[in-house]
Amino acid sequence: MMQVTERIAAFRAQMEAQHMAAVIVPTADSHASEYLADHFKARQWLCGFTGSAGTLVIGRQEAALFTDGRYFIQAQNQLEGSGVTLMRMGTAGTPTEEAYLDSLTKEGDTVGIDFSVVSAASADAMRAHLSARGVSLADTGDWFAKLWQDRPPMPQGKAFLLETCYTGRSTQEKLSAIRDVMSREKADVHVCNVLDDIAWTLNVRGSDVLYTPVVMSYLMITKNDATWFVDEAKVDDALRAALLASGVQVRGYGEIVQALGNLAPGIRVMADSKKMTASLIAALSKAELVQHENPAMRMKAHKNSVELENLRQAHIRDGLAVTHLMYWLKTRVGKEPMTEISVSDRLLALRKEQPHFISPSFSTICAYRDHAAMMHYSATPETDVALEPRDLLLIDSGGQYLEGTTDITRTFALGDVKEEQKKHFTAVLCGMLGLANAKFLYGVTGIGLDILARGPMWDLGIDYRCGTGHGVGYLLSVHEGPNSFRWYKSATRSEDTVLEEGMVTTDEPGIYIEGSHGIRTENELVCRKLEENEYGQFMGFEVITCAPIDLDAVIPEQMSPRQREQLNAYHAFVRDTLIGLIEDAQEREWLMHATRAI
Amino acid sequence: MMQVTERIAAFRAQMEAQHMAAVIVPTADSHASEYLADHFKARQWLCGFTGSAGTLVIGRQEAALFTDGRYFIQAQNQLEGSGVTLMRMGTAGTPTEEAYLDSLTKEGDTVGIDFSVVSAASADAMRAHLSARGVSLADTGDWFAKLWQDRPPMPQGKAFLLETCYTGRSTQEKLSAIRDVMSREKADVHVCNVLDDIAWTLNVRGSDVLYTPVVMSYLMITKNDATWFVDEAKVDDALRAALLASGVQVRGYGEIVQALGNLAPGIRVMADSKKMTASLIAALSKAELVQHENPAMRMKAHKNSVELENLRQAHIRDGLAVTHLMYWLKTRVGKEPMTEISVSDRLLALRKEQPHFISPSFSTICAYRDHAAMMHYSATPETDVALEPRDLLLIDSGGQYLEGTTDITRTFALGDVKEEQKKHFTAVLCGMLGLANAKFLYGVTGIGLDILARGPMWDLGIDYRCGTGHGVGYLLSVHEGPNSFRWYKSATRSEDTVLEEGMVTTDEPGIYIEGSHGIRTENELVCRKLEENEYGQFMGFEVITCAPIDLDAVIPEQMSPRQREQLNAYHAFVRDTLIGLIEDAQEREWLMHATRAI
Repeated sequence: MMQVTERIAAFRAQMEAQHMAAVIVPTADSHASEYLADHFKARQWLCGFTGSAGTLVIGRQEAALFTDGRYFIQAQNQLEGSGVTLMRMGTAGTPTEEAYLDSLTKEGDTVGIDFSVVSAASADAMRAHLSARGVSLADTGDWFAKLWQDRPPMPQGKAFLLETCYTGRSTQEKLSAIRDVMSREKADVHVCNVLDDIAWTLNVRGSDVLYTPVVMSYLMITKNDATWFVDEAKVDDALRAALLASGVQVRGYGEIVQALGNLAPGIRVMADSKKMTASLIAALSKAELVQHENPAMRMKAHKNSVELENLRQAHIRDGLAVTHLMYWLKTRVGKEPMTEISVSDRLLALRKEQPHFISPSFSTICAYRDHAAMMHYSATPETDVALEPRDLLLIDSGGQYLEGTTDITRTFALGDVKEEQKKHFTAVLCGMLGLANAKFLYGVTGIGLDILARGPMWDLGIDYRCGTGHGVGYLLSVHEGPNSFRWYKSATRSEDTVLEEGMVTTDEPGIYIEGSHGIRTENELVCRKLEENEYGQFMGFEVITCAPIDLDAVIPEQMSPRQREQLNAYHAFVRDTLIGLIEDAQEREWLMHATRAI
Repeated sequence: MMQVTERIAAFRAQMEAQHMAAVIVPTADSHASEYLADHFKARQWLCGFTGSAGTLVIGRQEAALFTDGRYFIQAQNQLEGSGVTLMRMGTAGTPTEEAYLDSLTKEGDTVGIDFSVVSAASADAMRAHLSARGVSLADTGDWFAKLWQDRPPMPQGKAFLLETCYTGRSTQEKLSAIRDVMSREKADVHVCNVLDDIAWTLNVRGSDVLYTPVVMSYLMITKNDATWFVDEAKVDDALRAALLASGVQVRGYGEIVQALGNLAPGIRVMADSKKMTASLIAALSKAELVQHENPAMRMKAHKNSVELENLRQAHIRDGLAVTHLMYWLKTRVGKEPMTEISVSDRLLALRKEQPHFISPSFSTICAYRDHAAMMHYSATPETDVALEPRDLLLIDSGGQYLEGTTDITRTFALGDVKEEQKKHFTAVLCGMLGLANAKFLYGVTGIGLDILARGPMWDLGIDYRCGTGHGVGYLLSVHEGPNSFRWYKSATRSEDTVLEEGMVTTDEPGIYIEGSHGIRTENELVCRKLEENEYGQFMGFEVITCAPIDLDAVIPEQMSPRQREQLNAYHAFVRDTLIGLIEDAQEREWLMHATRAI
């Protein structure tokens, strides 16, 4: 904590020198990324909180971190002694960021933020709010270049081409589809700074962000050509040639600012100011901004048939790795030493045995007992604990394969489990099954279905304080918009997105009891067309996650006959899919029992 | 039909004289009412369709009626031979009204509509759409004053004061609450043309609109006084004195236009341009319009504790009348003659036996066999049929009492019923129970809960093509916003309304199979606070409708144990509430059986 208080003191000295009453340090890079390259983890470096979401506001005397329900417990622990107040967003009595900024400032003051990591839309909204009270917003530039001594450099990963047998659609086809949108919007140019949108469009992948195989870059598309702004050292000759064949030139990463500035006055530039940084939109000042979401955002959410078939294969391999781990856990716990970290490592090793495995898709959560109550717990050597043949272990993990991205959570009974925990496990299971088996008319959004997963928890007077599920990329970010399952509307998400055929969304209700236990069961769902009749187009889900759900923690009597049928049907799918892939006869026998009908 | 074609011909002659390419005839009065006084039923007079919703567009050669799923079957029958095309809104291939108008017009043409019955917002939207193609929008004025020979006069009902023992809140308190909103919005004046908002604010009721006890009038509220513009013949001395004591003066109905025109330039007038007519907003031209929904709209949706306690009493009486009818139907069908109309009449007579009954709250739907597939069927002497001791009879009815407004639907098996119909009946029942027993966190909207009612139908590949439920007024309109249960967003409704304590909403899923049968089971739900804990404020529903659901049409095995418990708990409530109010020992015995646990 010493380090953190010193860092904040140095930061405040800079504020003093620049006459700023408060500075906002968001969790952000120049690409509106959810997961940041280490180079951009300035907020974490400054306050010590390692969660993936949160905004730090530093005032002259006080400071606060705003984060959401996933991180309340973790942030409370990590901020202890830092002098930074935890603001639990969405709970009664917590001020908004705006209200907190108001409390730190008076007329004539200046609030700062780095315009190269904040979106133009956010900066505009902040400016509007502050100016009503006579407070101004200023660009700090990147203070961390100086303050952060051992700052990691910009990532240097190599880029590679993803073949059409994996993507199902060529770069030309994708550029052409985007140009159709440009044409409808009468735009001459489209600029994109979002890394997964760029990777999808160009059929390129890289390794610049841990777990997310993207390449730090910008993309500019005109009616006839396209330019990829990227550190040229990352692009080998073969990739450069392939891109050129698709009409895409390569230029340096930093040249985007000049390229935007050079656009002829009055030219119509389509861009998403909710994603583009304030710096880049400022560089566009002569052009006419056509505000529009990046077309790639929705296009990539609708997985095509090639991607879907690949995804099914990826999930079989991924489920096999998880099933191997489950067999080992359930049969070996108490007989050989294991800890949260050693189990994570073993799961990674099992995934590495699978063909075309590239990396985990996020930091594995392997959380025993009360650790699992922290939704996004990540074991460290300091927190790691030995597993015993009792109580619940939650493992949320996923893989990046050439065949796609996976995300799966299972909670295992390592032995005797308290009755209340079984009750909670069964409620979570009923919720997960309820959503997975939904049948609905085309036009329904995630908001309309969320209660199918959440209802069994609400019936117990419990909530899991986060969405029920998120979209998943294809060898891209494990969190991908615009589809999701949530019950409340938020300003920054797209709960209104209609569920469309080919969208992949997770279904992961849970129960988290602080100091006691955490349970989550997560399958991925592919939205599919069912019958069309006089009432319209019916839709449903195909479950593609393929690993047993631990029946040792289930209370069958708590489930309706229909819910039991749904569980049995899922387990039959798991058994039939995996049994032929398991060599060990004892493991096969175990799987038959683990997937038995109840 | 002869009449209709002649009327349309006369209408077209008027169009010709006024050089109009098309004229829109909405279902509307000057008060944004859902239910119209007969004087305003011009659309019905002109095309013959008697449904409560629909927009008629008359072109020079062709004409079309746009209506929604509730009325497809009815409109198809009633429009036959009229030359008017039925446009089934929301179904594939149906053009929008705008697209249809485009097909009727070319640059330089004029489209007409009566500005005294169209909202300013609708007129603005139409004008914007048409002007993009060089078509103009013109005020026709009221052509029906001349064309409609035997047009009913403006209604003449007397107004009366509703005492505070019924309303729970005085006129002064309500005016004061509205002035608080005006003050927040920095408005000098609030003008309201919506009849139920006015009736709620002034604690007055009347009989100007069939089934809806409102008074044709306008209300203007300033910081210090208020003026009610109403036909003064409707206001007796006692009411006038009571209003004056609350600071409300009475002026003539037609004087509103002049009063608005006389407002000083620059004065800030709060009004809802989605409700105020284009004529009235035009009269405000010198003032500054502060666009805001009528504050009374949301205030009246939150029933206060006095209203809720009254409503419970109204529902007991109303349920008793329905239960008496059910007993008679189930024991006498096949033994004495009965028809749809005679049963409706008997139900009305039974309601009239109840104290403080004023009138039905809408036109009773008593629909046998395939008639019930028409969601809003109303039996006429031509369609009336004799009931036999078999098949299903659907009765949707309600009452206006001093203690509030009721709306209840029951579907009865009059004898043997086909297995498929029982299956449908049970699915509808499961949906109704699922929603009624929802438990949810504060913040949930109707969109988030709709699937609980609709899911069992969607599981069968069936939809009921309308909302699941609507808000209900207190001795006001049986359809009242802003609360509702729906799954899709529409431009004109408020599905985003958070369910708040004291809101009363119907829960009425159904199945409608054209040419065969219709089933609907409807209870009214009061939204109530349940426990508040670390997760937030939990909410649930109190069911206030009190009449048996016909177990003869239920397949118990199709219900989960939990659903059966929910049904049994509801029937125990009905039995315990009504048994002491039934004098006839045989009827009591029947009720015990009709509400038995299954």
